[in-house]
Amino acid sequence: MLVVQKYGGTSVADAERIRHVAGRVMRRVHAGDQVVVVVSAMGNRTDELIDLALSITPDPDPRELDMLLATGEQMSIALLAMALRALGQEAVGLTGQQAGIYTRADHGSGRIARVQAGRVRAELDCGRVPIVAGFQGATDEGDIVTLGRGGSDLTAVALAVALGADRCENCKDVEGVYTADPRLVPTARKLTDLTYEEMLELATQGSQVMHNRAVELASVYELPILVTSSLVDAPGTLIHGESELEERNRVRAIAHDTDVAKITIRRVPDRPGIAATIFEPLAAAGISVDTIVQNASEDNLTDLTFTISRKDLRRAESEMTGICRDVGAPGFVAAGELGKVSIVGVGIQTAPGYAARMFRALFNAGINIELISTSEIRLTCIIDAARVPDAVRALHEAFELERGD
Amino acid sequence: MLVVQKYGGTSVADAERIRHVAGRVMRRVHAGDQVVVVVSAMGNRTDELIDLALSITPDPDPRELDMLLATGEQMSIALLAMALRALGQEAVGLTGQQAGIYTRADHGSGRIARVQAGRVRAELDCGRVPIVAGFQGATDEGDIVTLGRGGSDLTAVALAVALGADRCENCKDVEGVYTADPRLVPTARKLTDLTYEEMLELATQGSQVMHNRAVELASVYELPILVTSSLVDAPGTLIHGESELEERNRVRAIAHDTDVAKITIRRVPDRPGIAATIFEPLAAAGISVDTIVQNASEDNLTDLTFTISRKDLRRAESEMTGICRDVGAPGFVAAGELGKVSIVGVGIQTAPGYAARMFRALFNAGINIELISTSEIRLTCIIDAARVPDAVRALHEAFELERGD
Repeated sequence: MLVVQKYGGTSVADAERIRHVAGRVMRRVHAGDQVVVVVSAMGNRTDELIDLALSITPDPDPRELDMLLATGEQMSIALLAMALRALGQEAVGLTGQQAGIYTRADHGSGRIARVQAGRVRAELDCGRVPIVAGFQGATDEGDIVTLGRGGSDLTAVALAVALGADRCENCKDVEGVYTADPRLVPTARKLTDLTYEEMLELATQGSQVMHNRAVELASVYELPILVTSSLVDAPGTLIHGESELEERNRVRAIAHDTDVAKITIRRVPDRPGIAATIFEPLAAAGISVDTIVQNASEDNLTDLTFTISRKDLRRAESEMTGICRDVGAPGFVAAGELGKVSIVGVGIQTAPGYAARMFRALFNAGINIELISTSEIRLTCIIDAARVPDAVRALHEAFELERGD
Repeated sequence: MLVVQKYGGTSVADAERIRHVAGRVMRRVHAGDQVVVVVSAMGNRTDELIDLALSITPDPDPRELDMLLATGEQMSIALLAMALRALGQEAVGLTGQQAGIYTRADHGSGRIARVQAGRVRAELDCGRVPIVAGFQGATDEGDIVTLGRGGSDLTAVALAVALGADRCENCKDVEGVYTADPRLVPTARKLTDLTYEEMLELATQGSQVMHNRAVELASVYELPILVTSSLVDAPGTLIHGESELEERNRVRAIAHDTDVAKITIRRVPDRPGIAATIFEPLAAAGISVDTIVQNASEDNLTDLTFTISRKDLRRAESEMTGICRDVGAPGFVAAGELGKVSIVGVGIQTAPGYAARMFRALFNAGINIELISTSEIRLTCIIDAARVPDAVRALHEAFELERGD
């Protein structure tokens, strides 16, 4: 079997863990598999490098920031390759560029243009384990570009697709995807499998397990992803295209996120083009808007509410005065201490009763719902951030997720 | 004027010094010069990275060690380019590979095969300051290779030669080359200029000012090098091909080194091929031999003495038992606490009296000479390491080096 294994920063945080990962990779090769490894920067290295850049200037040039950040993963590949060679296993560290990860020149949030996996395949054919730097690629001119959040997950999936690998393994400090965060819900259960759509919704709604860009790419090429532990040998969670018949119309897992802020613009004149007038300045300021809800119009005036990440609240507020003036609204109200809980499962939207059951469970726990948003396989309620743990526990119990598949 | 400026690790050790260097480079550009900058890794970063590698394995793979060490200079170029851009000066960080420094695949001690300076020149033509990572290059296959000790000096000279620069400026935490180490000799005087040969002898005999590989390369292409301060604006020392007539037959400077160990093989049978039998195993063990002295043969038996770096002494001793057996010598004597002092100046060897004056000065200071070695422009005495400071002071006074040119 040809697999691409990805190890995150926690799994390679120090010399001891790097040697542990090397042993794991070697045993896998001895078992007869072909293994390509993708690694992140060690522990908090990326944050340390960002702090270093900020000590030079509050607004570092994006190209040079990429040049700086790319050293984090370059350190990891060199150390892991050394560790494997010290065990007698031939290995070779490859930067994003050496591994053929080509991107556009959109520094800091690079999109992969193509993968030329010739070098990686040649190293595999020589019996060497290619250790590839995640999170980075290069332009055709050889300039280094980082891929933004979740970049190492994306590198692993893109390489697996280019190599025609049997699957991508995302090796983490958790054993798989759970029905809810086990730190909040002691009875949370590890899931055997999930569909791409379910994983995508969980990732988008706050699950830290995998980044949605990587899940999307895997979904397009139908590449199976195994989310598994880098520490213990235990079956993980397989993310793939098929969903078992009996799993349809079921809530599979609860996602939560406590990083939500809300802005409501009161009494907006309801005319065409008003949404663009509101959201274009926010997009220009780099503020990503999540849920948008517009209440039924009355006297041709409407209340419009949207949610954003809490870190963007101050910047959003400073844009709002101008926006209210431009749309002719008298003012806005902001709230910063919100969170969200979501139930996710293929087909729940089309099946009756799930929404009612969710609202009832939250009501019974004394939790007020501020906003509701839905997708085909998800139901999300925005609530008080402080009540998120209670809400997750109440929903986990209401949907009987502690019961086995 | 087109100049290549090189800044060492001390000059870019922290954010404040990096901003200081940025200001210096910008003022130079504003004054109308075209500037290419070569930088080393920050402060002790290279040593920290070596320690990190050793925490993984006592014998790191050389290719992966190069991959790791190269991150040090990559950090420096990114931070300095950011600092220049923050001042409003366009700049661009370039790795060794991006700057077109091509090497053979001799990891850890790379030799520059060629410099393709097209990208550097293009950036200059666009009004950007190219900030190039010293100490590193890449093979034609794109693998990273470091250039070994003094590598950043070498990068600067090689780039300057390839660009046809007017000169290379080696910007340091000292103001130039002195008649002796000012920490030992308070009356030491900064030299206005030196020939390549004189600088080469000083570098080889322990002066830390510039690496001899870089001086050699500059000499071949007759590229002037200015050794100057990165901290204050003061005239430095120009290293070039011409020597003033009145400077000939003069001692220009004293070099010293306290890192010397000595091994003497007693009663070696004096027959052809004996030197190869002794020195081949040492070379194979990676031990670099400095001075070799063979005493006049007697009864067809000879004493052979050579010096090495102190760090190699233990490994050399472990080779010596076998070597003594192979050459039929009864044994060897080792001494680890030695140093050397050298007087350097064009033509001193051909002029009479210098050697006598040197030996007299050391004798008057009560310093015993263990070994003597000479070149055309240098006289070196191996002495007790503890007496090196006294010897440097005695020689500086004996040759009246405190007196101006």
